[in-house]
Amino acid sequence: VGNTAVSRVTPGCPCAQNIVCVGRNYAEHAKEMGSALPAEPLFFLKPSSAYVREGSPIVRPYYCRNLHHEVELGVVIGRRAQAVPQDAAMEHVAGYALCLDMTARDTQEECKKKGLPWTLAKGFGSSCPVSDFVPKEKIPDPHKLQIWLKVNGKMRQEGDTSSMIFSIPYLISYISHIFTLEEGDLILTGSPKGVGSVEANDEIEAGIRDVLSMRFKVLRPKYTF
Amino acid sequence: VGNTAVSRVTPGCPCAQNIVCVGRNYAEHAKEMGSALPAEPLFFLKPSSAYVREGSPIVRPYYCRNLHHEVELGVVIGRRAQAVPQDAAMEHVAGYALCLDMTARDTQEECKKKGLPWTLAKGFGSSCPVSDFVPKEKIPDPHKLQIWLKVNGKMRQEGDTSSMIFSIPYLISYISHIFTLEEGDLILTGSPKGVGSVEANDEIEAGIRDVLSMRFKVLRPKYTF
Repeated sequence: VGNTAVSRVTPGCPCAQNIVCVGRNYAEHAKEMGSALPAEPLFFLKPSSAYVREGSPIVRPYYCRNLHHEVELGVVIGRRAQAVPQDAAMEHVAGYALCLDMTARDTQEECKKKGLPWTLAKGFGSSCPVSDFVPKEKIPDPHKLQIWLKVNGKMRQEGDTSSMIFSIPYLISYISHIFTLEEGDLILTGSPKGVGSVEANDEIEAGIRDVLSMRFKVLRPKYTF
Repeated sequence: VGNTAVSRVTPGCPCAQNIVCVGRNYAEHAKEMGSALPAEPLFFLKPSSAYVREGSPIVRPYYCRNLHHEVELGVVIGRRAQAVPQDAAMEHVAGYALCLDMTARDTQEECKKKGLPWTLAKGFGSSCPVSDFVPKEKIPDPHKLQIWLKVNGKMRQEGDTSSMIFSIPYLISYISHIFTLEEGDLILTGSPKGVGSVEANDEIEAGIRDVLSMRFKVLRPKYTF
């Protein structure tokens, strides 16, 4: 399972089939967004080309005027999960990766106001930068990790996964009762507070303390269409 | 390309990687939903387990009190499409399939009201029943197809793909400027008017006139969790 999962968290690989993102899973981030705390996890999907690895840029989509970073712990599914109870959920985890949930914040605000799907705001190509894969054996407790994000060397986000509202087993169980999670699927578990804008040529560096870090450059192409 | 695409529109196949659904693409359906006509296509994603073929039931999710049918022409991508212009878009099509965009309508109304993502309403397992694949050579003009849907033998939806607000080349071009469409991906092009409720044990029959038809049974499990 470990090796297969690694191969899926690899550039050029056609899967993860499903990239599932959880919103408002840290109280202080919900607060900074002016959002109510959810009674159940709130989630949405990203398309396959959202997935990028170090060396590929984060490309601001043409319609976005305010591109935001959100740093999140990613959970990599190692074994198909369909309607699994919480107490068996961790058996379906292969490991972890650090992920960014890049967000066209202006577009998202429009979507929320108009009651439209969030796909345009959250589901553009390169909206999900992903780190190297960390097998679960190397992470004694995924709810005791410090995740952080800097822009051009300046700290923007520092959070502790112990502050998640819904735990990883809860999320896996909840989602797996709505649709089947497949091997290689990624769950982004929500962002701590401190989200903010990035501009063209900014460098984002993010990490899990004592585990890994990654760097991504922000690109704003000259759109010709 | 044709054969590969067939193999991807096959039960048990891990892809389509992306199932992209377009909303409000028929004026009379937008009207029946009380929705404004969109200035640009509105779209959202379904997860891989949404995809089911004849013989598998449509399973009403536990939180849904009002499950709706929407019958739609599906476009199967045959070749990767990234920022393609409209006039080259049809070169990326392998063929077509008839699809249902099953919708937890009560959940969707909640999502719209609260500005939440539509995934819970539209992205549950078995929410995308798909017919056999039809290679594009067999469809002289995909904008001249009659699609229909019956529930327990009674006609509910009859629409003509000539009534689409955004054409297939427009949709492919538009979406491919937001994220890359991969070989085997499915685009659901929106539903004509006549959407409505289905109950447990209802039989949905749907077709493209003179091309194909398909049948799906609606299941409402006794949920024990």
